[in-house]
Amino acid sequence: MRIAIIGLGLIGGSWALALKEWAKSEERRPSGIEVVGFDAKGTQRAEANKRKIVDHIYATPMEAVKGAQVVIVATPVMAVRETFEDIAAHLEKGAIVTDVCSTKRQVMRWAKELLPDNVSFVGGHPMAGKTAGLEEAEAKLFQDCTYCLIPAPNARQEAIESVVRLVEIAGAKAHFIDADEHDSYVAAISHLPYLTATSLVNLSFESDGWKEISRVAGTGFQDTTRLADGSVQMWLDICRTNNDALISWIDRYQQMLSRVRHMLELAGLQDERGRSRPAEETEPEPLRAFLENAREGRTQLFQNKRKFQLESNFVDSSMPDSKEMKANIGRMFVGGMLKKPKKDEDSKS
Amino acid sequence: MRIAIIGLGLIGGSWALALKEWAKSEERRPSGIEVVGFDAKGTQRAEANKRKIVDHIYATPMEAVKGAQVVIVATPVMAVRETFEDIAAHLEKGAIVTDVCSTKRQVMRWAKELLPDNVSFVGGHPMAGKTAGLEEAEAKLFQDCTYCLIPAPNARQEAIESVVRLVEIAGAKAHFIDADEHDSYVAAISHLPYLTATSLVNLSFESDGWKEISRVAGTGFQDTTRLADGSVQMWLDICRTNNDALISWIDRYQQMLSRVRHMLELAGLQDERGRSRPAEETEPEPLRAFLENAREGRTQLFQNKRKFQLESNFVDSSMPDSKEMKANIGRMFVGGMLKKPKKDEDSKS
Repeated sequence: MRIAIIGLGLIGGSWALALKEWAKSEERRPSGIEVVGFDAKGTQRAEANKRKIVDHIYATPMEAVKGAQVVIVATPVMAVRETFEDIAAHLEKGAIVTDVCSTKRQVMRWAKELLPDNVSFVGGHPMAGKTAGLEEAEAKLFQDCTYCLIPAPNARQEAIESVVRLVEIAGAKAHFIDADEHDSYVAAISHLPYLTATSLVNLSFESDGWKEISRVAGTGFQDTTRLADGSVQMWLDICRTNNDALISWIDRYQQMLSRVRHMLELAGLQDERGRSRPAEETEPEPLRAFLENAREGRTQLFQNKRKFQLESNFVDSSMPDSKEMKANIGRMFVGGMLKKPKKDEDSKS
Repeated sequence: MRIAIIGLGLIGGSWALALKEWAKSEERRPSGIEVVGFDAKGTQRAEANKRKIVDHIYATPMEAVKGAQVVIVATPVMAVRETFEDIAAHLEKGAIVTDVCSTKRQVMRWAKELLPDNVSFVGGHPMAGKTAGLEEAEAKLFQDCTYCLIPAPNARQEAIESVVRLVEIAGAKAHFIDADEHDSYVAAISHLPYLTATSLVNLSFESDGWKEISRVAGTGFQDTTRLADGSVQMWLDICRTNNDALISWIDRYQQMLSRVRHMLELAGLQDERGRSRPAEETEPEPLRAFLENAREGRTQLFQNKRKFQLESNFVDSSMPDSKEMKANIGRMFVGGMLKKPKKDEDSKS
């Protein structure tokens, strides 16, 4: 079976490594899994070759997808449209196409508009990442992460099952979600934090005290603004394809900051002119409750995540037709190569 | 020499461990350095005892400071006032008092108001920290961090020099700064990031999609909101004693978010009703420049910090009377215990 990866950055490279490691550890037939790839940048292709990220690198996306049963598009969001246009006529009939982009509405629209009806598109988004490129790609990148999946309306059931199986192979946890909900939720939990991080940096960077301020920066600032160090091209594409959801969250965030501002006025020991006022005249409780709420929220968030990770993929209530899929779990997937190995079967083959 | 530490949390505990390690490694005279302590919480005192954080723990701050040449106040900011009131009558004549609080204007006011004239107060603030308490205290916590110092107008020159020496002993880099500037700069680089982190958490926590949102949270959110996990009491005190500087930065931050919002409108592929619009009609360049600026700012910030760390303490142009201090570097500090060891001298003693 051939799997083609278009775009060999952190995510594409990690997909390739995860698949190759799985193929090795599961003692597949020698002729089994072949992972091929393409990247628009020559330097990236050279690095992928050097590190043997894929079995073969092609000079065009058209050649890479030829004969591939599965195609993983791992480019920045705005490059997906052109990639779909390029590969559409070269995809195998019945091929499975998926992507890894951080926003899903535009990608689903482009898939509907540009890909042939005889391929199954299943949008994907791994909630994993680092502020790095191919150099930090690793087979374990997706281990235990939530992997959002949005099947196109015309995607075949076996194709969806195959993508779930691939996600399991990568060590991640499939999570079916609607494209609108996905884009809104990741705006709150990922894209807005990126914009608050870049804004925090620019606020100090543009201020008169910049040089002095940078002397007193500690690890807190480093962590809070880590996202600002990410690929500008990738994040710009995310912002452009999720602008409306982001604007809606920015409006709510601004309202919350105004609440915080008011609570600071109530709680503070300095009046508006910077003069001391007695602690007895201040009202710290609303601010205390707000800060305690955030601490509690963060604790719950990571508890929820862990709980979710412990659930089995196939009891996930969000999965479409989960009963049918549960029954199908032992069935042959694409080319028979992705099925879960059974020991006695393996010894016979 | 006796050093008393009032408040045995992460910072107080780390000071104690750093001093004890130094005393050991420098092969001080057996009777040399004695580190004693106090904490208002019985559980904290018990833990400090168990881990041998200090040589002796007292049940009151008054007993702890008795006979101490150096007193380090490491309580939350709002407890400093009461601590000063408690210890004022029990301090040795000529003692050096310093603190570790994250805001400095109120502390300097309280020191002036409450401490006797015959002690030297040197306000301090290490730009180091973790989201943890005494359990993570370590001798190396201050290694390479910027350590802000604000001497009171009546602090003696030798007292200031002794505090600089202590900061060096802890592995940190002394940085003299004005209290107003300090409070404004740390508001931008530390306290505002804390409030943006708590606001980001509460924004999702208070939203209807909370449960779904927590499923898609990744490492980016975890890092961006790490500060929200800190001690609410500590941060509330910081907010209350730095409310005016914080409000001024929040106002500027809100203006910046409004700029970001406008740039999203220009760059986005969705119009205000969520309908697709052609890429050719969008204007992504202002947003790209903003994001690139943040990336550049963050790079420069850490370059500036490293450059600053490489400078010698005693050529720091911000130090008061730096020429005089440079000449005095070899002089005897408090009790002769803090001077830099010279090998041939040591072998004679």
